[in-house]
Amino acid sequence: MTTGPTHTIHASEHHLGWNNSLSPVRHVRPGESIEIDVLDASGGQIGPDTTAEDLARLDFARVNPVTGPLFVEGAEPGDALRITALGIVPSGWGWTANVPGFGLLADDFPDPALRLWSYDEQARTPAMYQAGGRVPIRPFMGTIGVAPAEAGTHSVVPPRRVGGNMDIRDLGTGSVLELPVEVPGALLSVGDTHAAQGDGEVCGTAIESPMRVTLRIDLIKGARIAFPRYETPGPVSNHVDAKGYLVTTGIGPDLMEGARAAVRGMIDLLGSRHGLTGVDAYMLASVCADLRILEIVDQPHWVVGLAFPRVVFE
Amino acid sequence: MTTGPTHTIHASEHHLGWNNSLSPVRHVRPGESIEIDVLDASGGQIGPDTTAEDLARLDFARVNPVTGPLFVEGAEPGDALRITALGIVPSGWGWTANVPGFGLLADDFPDPALRLWSYDEQARTPAMYQAGGRVPIRPFMGTIGVAPAEAGTHSVVPPRRVGGNMDIRDLGTGSVLELPVEVPGALLSVGDTHAAQGDGEVCGTAIESPMRVTLRIDLIKGARIAFPRYETPGPVSNHVDAKGYLVTTGIGPDLMEGARAAVRGMIDLLGSRHGLTGVDAYMLASVCADLRILEIVDQPHWVVGLAFPRVVFE
Repeated sequence: MTTGPTHTIHASEHHLGWNNSLSPVRHVRPGESIEIDVLDASGGQIGPDTTAEDLARLDFARVNPVTGPLFVEGAEPGDALRITALGIVPSGWGWTANVPGFGLLADDFPDPALRLWSYDEQARTPAMYQAGGRVPIRPFMGTIGVAPAEAGTHSVVPPRRVGGNMDIRDLGTGSVLELPVEVPGALLSVGDTHAAQGDGEVCGTAIESPMRVTLRIDLIKGARIAFPRYETPGPVSNHVDAKGYLVTTGIGPDLMEGARAAVRGMIDLLGSRHGLTGVDAYMLASVCADLRILEIVDQPHWVVGLAFPRVVFE
Repeated sequence: MTTGPTHTIHASEHHLGWNNSLSPVRHVRPGESIEIDVLDASGGQIGPDTTAEDLARLDFARVNPVTGPLFVEGAEPGDALRITALGIVPSGWGWTANVPGFGLLADDFPDPALRLWSYDEQARTPAMYQAGGRVPIRPFMGTIGVAPAEAGTHSVVPPRRVGGNMDIRDLGTGSVLELPVEVPGALLSVGDTHAAQGDGEVCGTAIESPMRVTLRIDLIKGARIAFPRYETPGPVSNHVDAKGYLVTTGIGPDLMEGARAAVRGMIDLLGSRHGLTGVDAYMLASVCADLRILEIVDQPHWVVGLAFPRVVFE
């Protein structure tokens, strides 16, 4: 028998920063399900009328809100939460921005840029890019994590071993995530839902989009895992891979520089082939192209690739 | 009209190291096709009767042979070779080794290990792993490159901007690779064919296997590309992705350490779920699991994932 969720947390019940002293907004028992409304990463500051100029006035104290925290009965340090994404309902609207100072090529793109997306909520059709191209959507949770053991308030921007802003595009419907618990009750929160993203999220934003997610929460006692791990129920790229990829590479002794070279190569390629401006190519790659470590053992040079799905333009 | 290849280079016509003063073994004109026989990465030193103990006696002066070089008429510095893989015929036999001092976790696995593979040449069935598991094969060229401008002999181990030992698993039948030319005639050579590999090639070897490849060589005048780039004609993971993935992560300020943590997490997971020894899990991951940069922008912590295809055991 399938029963519906037994709890709902609305987006107004959010917090800014991780802190293990926050009061839980709900308690659940292992095996229960819960609906969670998630704000976009701007905390509602960016809307359909926002312009690139408005980005300069973003209140960064309000970004990266997460809904929660949720107290899981019986969870103790050393356990793992096992979280099954039962469903993710996107809102049909989203945004992608180049925020000055943020992103893999922050030095190359110092000026703010913003693109708005209107997409089919059922994901039956790809989202249209204003600068050109069609991006198949696959919604997921960009931020999902539990409270760290360390006292105090910690920024939501960096992910940690307890999860958080991991921006893992596989964490969509059907995925099963295990997170290490560091405090009693775990204190789970969720935020930063994305309609589509490539591995890496190279410009720093995806198709940022508020959503409702439904999760089942289970507990693995004494799991003692070092970092988050997860399972996917099927292919993770079959929404974009039908026509293959264009791949640019960066080769050398540093993975970060290799990644930058691969992204720069793709920006050049998308510019020459499809007439995109640099910043539009950069933002488009962020929402659909995958950073892959193609080779990491042939001392002293590694190969990083950025794989852009040809279906976007073909 | 399709015509067959007009040239054949046999594996005896190989060289050790890149050197732009080597005499070409053949000349081709742009638009022509050529068959190339490729030795395995050991240069034939590893065979069906080789044991892990024999690895200590490997003559490293004979490893990484490449067949060639091929002089491409009209190719000049600043151009790009455009190389279409028309066909790759695997031999049905291969090996995977942990070679002491080599591989992403060289410090964790100091002892030699060797697994031999016998697989269906038509790739209708997966290759069976002696320690357990079935690995779908997809043959490709591990090494393909042109001579560097810099004089002297250069090791084949590290890849460079002119290509070489890139170990890019996408370079199979139908792929189209562009390589920057640095010397007149380009001097193309091919080696190190693999029957299967995951992104990263984490233990340092794949399913190492001699093969015959057929390539068409075209020339793009004045291309001036910074690094190799390529196109694939279709999905690159659909031979392994039907049942989804197990993914382990490493999160922190260094991509290399994140990659190591992700691989260690997968070795633990494959050990507890499927009873593999550490070194068997490590070598199995190398031939089928993908290292992905899942997030590279959430300062100061990045997320690296290792995605292991569930079809290997399910």
